[in-house]
Amino acid sequence: MDYTKSVIAEIVAIGSELLTPFRQDTNSLYLTQRLNELGIEVAFKNVVGDDRENLAQVARNAIQRSHIVIFMGGLGPTEDDLTREAVSDALGLRLKRNPDMVADLYKRFAARRVTMPDNNMRQAEVIEGAEIIPNANGSAPGQYIEGAQDGSPRYIFLLPGPPHELKPMWNDQCHQILREKVPRVFIATRELRVSSLGESTVDARIAPIYTKHKDIQTTILAKAGEVQIHLRSRAKSRVEAQGNVDRLAGELEDELDDAVFSSNGESLEQIVGYYLQMRSATICVAESCTGGLVAERLTSVSGSSRYFLGGAVVYSNHLKTLLADVPPMMIEEYGAVSRQIAVALAENFRDMCNATIGIGITGIAGPTGGSEDKPVGLVYIAVADDLGTDVVERRFPGDRERIRWWSSQVALDMVRKKLI
Amino acid sequence: MDYTKSVIAEIVAIGSELLTPFRQDTNSLYLTQRLNELGIEVAFKNVVGDDRENLAQVARNAIQRSHIVIFMGGLGPTEDDLTREAVSDALGLRLKRNPDMVADLYKRFAARRVTMPDNNMRQAEVIEGAEIIPNANGSAPGQYIEGAQDGSPRYIFLLPGPPHELKPMWNDQCHQILREKVPRVFIATRELRVSSLGESTVDARIAPIYTKHKDIQTTILAKAGEVQIHLRSRAKSRVEAQGNVDRLAGELEDELDDAVFSSNGESLEQIVGYYLQMRSATICVAESCTGGLVAERLTSVSGSSRYFLGGAVVYSNHLKTLLADVPPMMIEEYGAVSRQIAVALAENFRDMCNATIGIGITGIAGPTGGSEDKPVGLVYIAVADDLGTDVVERRFPGDRERIRWWSSQVALDMVRKKLI
Repeated sequence: MDYTKSVIAEIVAIGSELLTPFRQDTNSLYLTQRLNELGIEVAFKNVVGDDRENLAQVARNAIQRSHIVIFMGGLGPTEDDLTREAVSDALGLRLKRNPDMVADLYKRFAARRVTMPDNNMRQAEVIEGAEIIPNANGSAPGQYIEGAQDGSPRYIFLLPGPPHELKPMWNDQCHQILREKVPRVFIATRELRVSSLGESTVDARIAPIYTKHKDIQTTILAKAGEVQIHLRSRAKSRVEAQGNVDRLAGELEDELDDAVFSSNGESLEQIVGYYLQMRSATICVAESCTGGLVAERLTSVSGSSRYFLGGAVVYSNHLKTLLADVPPMMIEEYGAVSRQIAVALAENFRDMCNATIGIGITGIAGPTGGSEDKPVGLVYIAVADDLGTDVVERRFPGDRERIRWWSSQVALDMVRKKLI
Repeated sequence: MDYTKSVIAEIVAIGSELLTPFRQDTNSLYLTQRLNELGIEVAFKNVVGDDRENLAQVARNAIQRSHIVIFMGGLGPTEDDLTREAVSDALGLRLKRNPDMVADLYKRFAARRVTMPDNNMRQAEVIEGAEIIPNANGSAPGQYIEGAQDGSPRYIFLLPGPPHELKPMWNDQCHQILREKVPRVFIATRELRVSSLGESTVDARIAPIYTKHKDIQTTILAKAGEVQIHLRSRAKSRVEAQGNVDRLAGELEDELDDAVFSSNGESLEQIVGYYLQMRSATICVAESCTGGLVAERLTSVSGSSRYFLGGAVVYSNHLKTLLADVPPMMIEEYGAVSRQIAVALAENFRDMCNATIGIGITGIAGPTGGSEDKPVGLVYIAVADDLGTDVVERRFPGDRERIRWWSSQVALDMVRKKLI
């Protein structure tokens, strides 16, 4: 095959629970990432319930149109587990009981001094010509079948659904099998993250640059308070692929300047942590409307005890005074939600903790508690250090969760800008 | 149609970005919930990229096998937006430019004093015989087509991908259309949530009960620190359906007793909030390894300012003393991660805040900081009130995020048990 032309894969997630409002396939995100690393694109994803006929139909379509087909789930011992049967229907191949696997199952149950229910024998059924993929973390082994369709090769995998079984099986075994089958290409990726600019602004500024690099796939994603730019290049050598994405990433960073907070996909709290450690600085936060979210994000980073001293979640006015040393008279004069109180929270709590940097946040996360003067979404954020205190007023749209998240995002980004 | 027999739906999510490792369709969970309310089951879900041929193929399959087919995405003005074309290919129907919609587009651009790029005319292309579904939150309208396949009716929807456009369109318009088309059935649901028991324990205890009710669909899902039990019944009347799930829910609650913390799907923090309000009680938390997570969860509930006074995130020993009044000598004697310090955090911080209930947490979230004596995952959790202080020692498995989440879950559940 031509190295520039894609080998396409299709993923089929099996299980009636994946067709309820409560549960979603997430394995396919992991598999897509690993397939992309081999230069393989995912062209179709399917979810189908525990129904032999429906599943066989989906399997037939998939095998017809895609070089690689990965079935996930439905390999257990119960009557609902029909993947083996449906795929053998679709391929027109028989299922055979594998004597080694039968012996193995008997051994397992004997070790537990339990009589094996007959159902379990189903896990020893193997599609004619299939290779068995051992499962180190569960009882259902996987299967791998090579076939052909209209003269084009087909590589078919049957894997168990639980992520902690599927992922190591893919990593340790399936990835190697495929690596030898598909033409060797080299893929390199980069991820930039941008704060304080909207998706459309980012796109307007960088589209003239990335559209000149047609060979690099650029994906722009907006999350609350940040924009992610994913770059991916495929080339004949690792050096060439890496050079491609690095060159484009450099051009984009030049254009977006210090709005880019992360040049390799790190989170804002990780980046703030790096800078704090680099400067041997420490940080503390006195927060009201964010209710502990800023502290939670800062401490979600492993090793954060080196720079995070502590936080005060000061919902009541009494606690603003008690924990963060804000004078009651100030609260009375300006109101708890005010620029002055944000500054006092940052400065006074910083003094108390003896930290390099202090964050202060006060606002109205809603949905109740707003007024005409001080509407839901109004938030004051202050960051104090030896050189002085920055404070901003923001009016965030959206619900409680969104307002709290945006507030934490702006606060962490202000800290980042103080540190660079 | 027979009311006991399912009308089946199929969902097709369109967009190459949904085939990357970074983004996932989530609309289908919402649509599934709404379809289920009408007694409609989702039998297939598909994800396909912006490719006319692939999309037309998926559309043909879907229309052949499913009564209701919902396409999401690919309705914008760009060259990548091919849903209109592909579905018209699959149906063998022509696309026609709708003059009213053309006029509307011109008006929109004129109002913004911008010349309309030609591309935008594509949004005015309508499949022959389709009804237009106005979009209040975006420029791409939806389309609805009635058809037939082998004598069976077909209801086909084309909807935009962004959730804030799709959801109101479904709610305000599509749901009504379908309600009139499908046989009337009544669906009732209940969700119980269980803490402090594992999934297999819960299932072993309740399977003998729910398997006797074959007419009620029971789905058991495990999340970190809780098990969710979803019940769903379909019947000829609302009263009958509701009676079915309520009866089973009652039997399950009897069996699981006070391990059931929520009998209608509320979160643990919501339930704790209800009880606190009911008792006119207040709460505060002094937490170390959870880094603000307990405060964040308590305050994520709207109206929590009525009972949540404040929190102290006491990472450093200095702050344990300064914010939560833990004597330095105690820390020296027992170590910061100890039963005694958890108790002191809960009791002393409760005194400081003058709260009804005080929570204290100290532990090692890892991955670093563990020792043979005090390994990663060791957490002490204390809850104090007027009647005394409960304290537990736990050794949680898993990574930093999991250890922190489990700790917060156990803490909130201890508070719940104090309050009931």
